[in-house]
Amino acid sequence: VVTPGAPDRADGVDATGASDGRVVVLGLGLVGGSLARLLHARGADVVGYDADAATRTAAAAAGLRVADDVAGAVAEAGVVVLAVPLRAMGAVAAEVAAAAPPGVTVTDVGSVKGPVRQAVAAAGLGERYVGAHPMAGTEHSGFGASSAALLDGAPWAVTVAAGASTPGVGTAGTDPARLAAVLRLVTGRLGGTAAVLTDELHDEAAALVSHVPHVLATQLLNAVAGAPVRDVALGLAAGSFRDGTRVAFTDPARTQAMVTENAAWVAPALRKAVRDLEAVVAALETNASLHGFFHEADQVRATWTPRRPGAGSAEGAGRPGGDVVALAGDWPRAVLDRCAAGAVVTRVDADGVHLA
Amino acid sequence: VVTPGAPDRADGVDATGASDGRVVVLGLGLVGGSLARLLHARGADVVGYDADAATRTAAAAAGLRVADDVAGAVAEAGVVVLAVPLRAMGAVAAEVAAAAPPGVTVTDVGSVKGPVRQAVAAAGLGERYVGAHPMAGTEHSGFGASSAALLDGAPWAVTVAAGASTPGVGTAGTDPARLAAVLRLVTGRLGGTAAVLTDELHDEAAALVSHVPHVLATQLLNAVAGAPVRDVALGLAAGSFRDGTRVAFTDPARTQAMVTENAAWVAPALRKAVRDLEAVVAALETNASLHGFFHEADQVRATWTPRRPGAGSAEGAGRPGGDVVALAGDWPRAVLDRCAAGAVVTRVDADGVHLA
Repeated sequence: VVTPGAPDRADGVDATGASDGRVVVLGLGLVGGSLARLLHARGADVVGYDADAATRTAAAAAGLRVADDVAGAVAEAGVVVLAVPLRAMGAVAAEVAAAAPPGVTVTDVGSVKGPVRQAVAAAGLGERYVGAHPMAGTEHSGFGASSAALLDGAPWAVTVAAGASTPGVGTAGTDPARLAAVLRLVTGRLGGTAAVLTDELHDEAAALVSHVPHVLATQLLNAVAGAPVRDVALGLAAGSFRDGTRVAFTDPARTQAMVTENAAWVAPALRKAVRDLEAVVAALETNASLHGFFHEADQVRATWTPRRPGAGSAEGAGRPGGDVVALAGDWPRAVLDRCAAGAVVTRVDADGVHLA
Repeated sequence: VVTPGAPDRADGVDATGASDGRVVVLGLGLVGGSLARLLHARGADVVGYDADAATRTAAAAAGLRVADDVAGAVAEAGVVVLAVPLRAMGAVAAEVAAAAPPGVTVTDVGSVKGPVRQAVAAAGLGERYVGAHPMAGTEHSGFGASSAALLDGAPWAVTVAAGASTPGVGTAGTDPARLAAVLRLVTGRLGGTAAVLTDELHDEAAALVSHVPHVLATQLLNAVAGAPVRDVALGLAAGSFRDGTRVAFTDPARTQAMVTENAAWVAPALRKAVRDLEAVVAALETNASLHGFFHEADQVRATWTPRRPGAGSAEGAGRPGGDVVALAGDWPRAVLDRCAAGAVVTRVDADGVHLA
């Protein structure tokens, strides 16, 4: 169920009264389709496109405005969202570069941010690009699995290029006006929250909370699939196996791409997993205590509660007492610093960027 | 919601008209409490006991019959279910041995079967023992988290001692009459299904689908808890991390006991995980393909669907065309062989053991 956005947050109009314009979603799979559906449900000016004709037909049948090609889709775009597989980002970005208006803001929904920025920059769109990644999904894929509810109120990461030597992100390759436009989109009509991060910080954190979990889930499923006791094991499988392998039922090609693209962060995290598991094996084989291993995360257990699906909408929004960073000076750096400490953007308005 | 058992399956009366008698549940935590609640809801003669006085009070307040001590609880028992922590099995079994009638059948709900059989045998109850393990649970614990619904229709493993050199399980330490009594309990009033397995086969399969998943979930949570980017990572955590770590929010002491007790099977399974993950790291670092890793379980993906919570009740029951093994000769061996190939017991009646 998609709730109407609050009027003061959902109009897509920035502090100066200027609209960020049409949102064009390229790729109408699970995430792109859900994004287009949600924007459509909120009354936004949204146009979609997918390389697959059957997907375009299905999207049109669902009431979405669908273009016949990339050039037609982006011709009057204010914001273009690349929602194609990681391997296709570069090629689609090149098509966008050839046809989109100069003022366009390009963003994406890819699960890895550094490599997408490289691909977009190679297409000549680096200065118009702001990275984005909604932290929501299911083990299904394709437009048929999309829904306006999937991304409604989702937490997003919105990423900027880290300057090599400068503390000013605004001067390091990410246009503050375009960053503001993406933050307005995410926290406005999409009803979400946004953690503004460098690509590197996103990719390191995403390796820990998403990519490595996908690898471990795949290993669990593989181990049972290849075991002599497979049939008995699957017969006994209950909650711990179901949840531990859920994401291994994701399209394996998509998972492979995600993991491979973020190899720089996934590999060291997996190396740590190997070391940790070797220590567990050694303890089991020598009757040494595993108390430390099983209690290492007790503080997180005591203080952190996993977010439930669909519970994100109210998070942060309207929370009193949050920071506000005015849209002046090197405000992206100020927002970045606060988000690195765990804050999220909940709103952008005439007062500035609201954080909670 | 607990549905009433079908009259022809839920009366606890065997094919000869003899009742298996009172069921005594020792330990009223999550599983024991749920078991007692379900049997009570089905109108069974059930008596519970817990070493913790507050738990006894809570169970009595929930309408259960509660004894003041083990001796009083088991004095008129037909079946005693040990539902205490693994480390307490031996001590409680010794109390049962001192007070229960000679004809009693002893079973349990422990997550590891070989070590429980050893503990029960050390208490002198080996010949009266049949192992059992309901494949259901939550990340919570204690009587307060118990419910009649938790085990309603659950798949169980029911375990027997494997004869060292004989194909006849019935002659290898597990009494066929007591095996039949436990199968009647599980598939009758409890509405479940039962895979009859040797302790070894259970413990090997449980390592793969339960104990190793608990270790991997703990490692995932530990890795984030100890990461410099912890706060950002927890802020980005969504479905894959939530599901991948769910069972790491189980009482760590209980998980540690389960893993440690089954070290003989968990350690080699973890060694395989280490090898598999090392291969993934090597591939990521050399740009080698991970296609094989991500597609290794495609056949399971295509043919197997994880059981959803609460969906177990109808499974197998009433399925046409199942085998029936008459309760004659070395029937436990025949049932064991079928279950090793993936069958489950759905009913025990005058015709024998029904398999699906």
